Amino acid sequence: MTGMTDNALVPESVFLPASHASVSLQRCASCQMVLDALDPSPDCPRCRGLLEIVHRAPRDRQGHAMDASALRASFSQHCCVRSLGHGDPENAPLAQASGVWRFESLVMPGAGTAIVSHPEGNTPLLSRPAISRYAGLVSLLIKHEGHNPTGSFKDRGMTAGVTQAMRIGAQAVACASTGNTSAALASYAAQAGIPGLVFVPAGKIAIGKLAQTLAFGARTLLVRGDFDVCLRLVQEASRELGIYLLNSINPWRVEGQKTIVLELLQQLDWQPPDFLVLPAGNLGNTSAFGKALREARELGLIDRVPRLVAVQAAGAAPFARAFPEGFSTRYRVQAETVATAIRIGDPASWDRAVRAITETNGLVISCSDAEIIDAKMIIDAAGVGCEPASAASVAGVRQLVREGIIGAQDRVVALLTGHVLKDPGMLVELHQQREDVMHANRPIEIDATVSAVADVLQRTRAAALAGA
Amino acid sequence: MTGMTDNALVPESVFLPASHASVSLQRCASCQMVLDALDPSPDCPRCRGLLEIVHRAPRDRQGHAMDASALRASFSQHCCVRSLGHGDPENAPLAQASGVWRFESLVMPGAGTAIVSHPEGNTPLLSRPAISRYAGLVSLLIKHEGHNPTGSFKDRGMTAGVTQAMRIGAQAVACASTGNTSAALASYAAQAGIPGLVFVPAGKIAIGKLAQTLAFGARTLLVRGDFDVCLRLVQEASRELGIYLLNSINPWRVEGQKTIVLELLQQLDWQPPDFLVLPAGNLGNTSAFGKALREARELGLIDRVPRLVAVQAAGAAPFARAFPEGFSTRYRVQAETVATAIRIGDPASWDRAVRAITETNGLVISCSDAEIIDAKMIIDAAGVGCEPASAASVAGVRQLVREGIIGAQDRVVALLTGHVLKDPGMLVELHQQREDVMHANRPIEIDATVSAVADVLQRTRAAALAGA
Repeated sequence: MTGMTDNALVPESVFLPASHASVSLQRCASCQMVLDALDPSPDCPRCRGLLEIVHRAPRDRQGHAMDASALRASFSQHCCVRSLGHGDPENAPLAQASGVWRFESLVMPGAGTAIVSHPEGNTPLLSRPAISRYAGLVSLLIKHEGHNPTGSFKDRGMTAGVTQAMRIGAQAVACASTGNTSAALASYAAQAGIPGLVFVPAGKIAIGKLAQTLAFGARTLLVRGDFDVCLRLVQEASRELGIYLLNSINPWRVEGQKTIVLELLQQLDWQPPDFLVLPAGNLGNTSAFGKALREARELGLIDRVPRLVAVQAAGAAPFARAFPEGFSTRYRVQAETVATAIRIGDPASWDRAVRAITETNGLVISCSDAEIIDAKMIIDAAGVGCEPASAASVAGVRQLVREGIIGAQDRVVALLTGHVLKDPGMLVELHQQREDVMHANRPIEIDATVSAVADVLQRTRAAALAGA
Repeated sequence: MTGMTDNALVPESVFLPASHASVSLQRCASCQMVLDALDPSPDCPRCRGLLEIVHRAPRDRQGHAMDASALRASFSQHCCVRSLGHGDPENAPLAQASGVWRFESLVMPGAGTAIVSHPEGNTPLLSRPAISRYAGLVSLLIKHEGHNPTGSFKDRGMTAGVTQAMRIGAQAVACASTGNTSAALASYAAQAGIPGLVFVPAGKIAIGKLAQTLAFGARTLLVRGDFDVCLRLVQEASRELGIYLLNSINPWRVEGQKTIVLELLQQLDWQPPDFLVLPAGNLGNTSAFGKALREARELGLIDRVPRLVAVQAAGAAPFARAFPEGFSTRYRVQAETVATAIRIGDPASWDRAVRAITETNGLVISCSDAEIIDAKMIIDAAGVGCEPASAASVAGVRQLVREGIIGAQDRVVALLTGHVLKDPGMLVELHQQREDVMHANRPIEIDATVSAVADVLQRTRAAALAGA
């Protein structure tokens, strides 16, 4: 079977004409109000709708619109060995070694010298027989975003977001978040040399989750109040203090995250897969992937789009619940799952994600925590490893193969969003302490004799043959 | 001042003639006994000396010796976006996307289809003003090996070591180690589909150090005995059970680690720096760097060699102690330092490292734990981050600049060996719990008011201006 959609649903150009005066605009997805590219508003000043970026169609130095082959050639330049980052005198021509900034014309055209790049991206596209077998496919491809500088895909959005902060002369950058987002914000703010502020509820966050954030020098504000209070405070502060807000709905972060898809397509020589499967919490990646595919299709970089599959954790699955009803209701739930990176009860990028799923003839499903952990154990044991939430994508592929929606021969890419080192505590718990975990790999105490080693080796081989 | 040595010390070719029948041999560095490239011995069967690899001079398909420009061109092919790994049907031509295997002709010529590659390498070469200032240089370049798949440089040696295990048909691979080495071994053994065995003393190792090893599915053997007992057992077992020993003296791991230098030189367009500074514990990298430079010089890839600077932790500095005495004594010490990755009292690769330092007119120094932690805090706060031991290189540069041995304008590359996520527990301890740490970044509890945020922002800016 094929996963292709023949969608010709895009009603009009997603780009400004190549002759347009501006290289980029911000536009409210609800009321269509237009803002200048350098407007710092976190959402629509008129209706509070989500903002999105509209670029002028990419053009060459002569001002002519670029065709797909010219664009592909431009992306292939400078995509070699990751090299010098921002701050070095020899830097400028090398920012495009970044897996985000070589797509500058589709991310933030003209960002030029403002770019704050680690560099990031250039993440591997992997395939491992054990994971493919587990998923039920001949060959599952894995795009591993955990191999970004701070260990998660968030770096791709933050390099764009912090670059935008520099372009508008922000005094500081801020977010209300724990974990991967605040780690990425802290890293890029430090590099840019502007303060990074992270707002979290006092007394509710394990400091271990903030280890990178503290190390990278962001000011961590323990706010006396709950998470909603934090969100309101960071928004107020951004309006009153010239702080640029880099929360998950920031439209420039979406632009940076688009490059996961662009780089993936480039790695596949612009032959799109049948399905592209990703973990889904706040729906930022789902939205970004939809936009990337829409733009790549219009530019002729690809001639068809893969079906997007958003996979939620069963305990945090409002989007999956709405999918079979045609998204007629926007659900909000009390989220609870071991997959902390997607533990979101009221996804911020809902509307954009609906469009992404609809336009790609996509699917939204959910997997149980047990299924997610089981998939993680397989990914880890293949020598690849990932953060728990990442494994939702592989668990989702397995589910759809079992249901016959994905065929064993289909070309499928699953996204892993975070590095295995993002949650070492869980590793020890899974392998050492808990009794209920399949595939647990407990240390074995032995006497110091060769026969004891031979015995372990024999049992290991037997277990491998049994497929355990 | 210049850091160059005009060394013409290489007495004879370091390669076999291009006409030689074998592409590679193993040779004892002590008694010169020669072993076949596929011999599994962990050291010299005659005198227990260290083995090293000697390759045939690289030649083209017509069998002619390749000159430097032909070699450079061969390295530049396929060095684009990290792509499909071992196990995928489309894999074969893409292994050279690896930052190790595009140098195959200097690492393991003819490894071909046996290659087990994540892929690894392609690590960034960074520069950050804050770190340069701290070191006292106009621009310090940082080669960050923490951006390898498992989070440390060990992946470069292990891709070579596990590939060699596949070439010789080993039943399993093993090492006696905790931490980065066992994590890398576990990852590559899993990918190769052969058992990985990790030997550690029972009751003496925090399981947290083994989180990745357990996750990647290596059998972790808690041996009833101390570390010496573990070492003896793993050696015995390797001889009797067909287990290939991937301890730190394995000569193929050295070949893989050479590519840190080769990739670095490629990133610098083959213009070597004045100094190349690295953390030094077991002296594997020091040895590998010396061999890489020796070979690169003979091949004409570079026309001079940088001075190698090996930096030890003061509490684990036998090599630094021996340096001013011309290495006339091989010291052994009780090692104690916070920099666990270089906490080695009796470095295994001593003799090879002596040669590396001597041939490059190099230096060996030591830094205190306080200096190492201080440098780490600066590297972290620049948004880069590293494992504690890594920071020894930057601390060492700072020391040599203060002493006038390195000049402010000199071109210096410092090596970071591990990712900041390798030791998150230390981050929390440094920033949250200890009172004696400079640059600690403690969370700040505030009321949910904009004025409280404004206050924090103002203090942050004042601290930045004060250079804190």
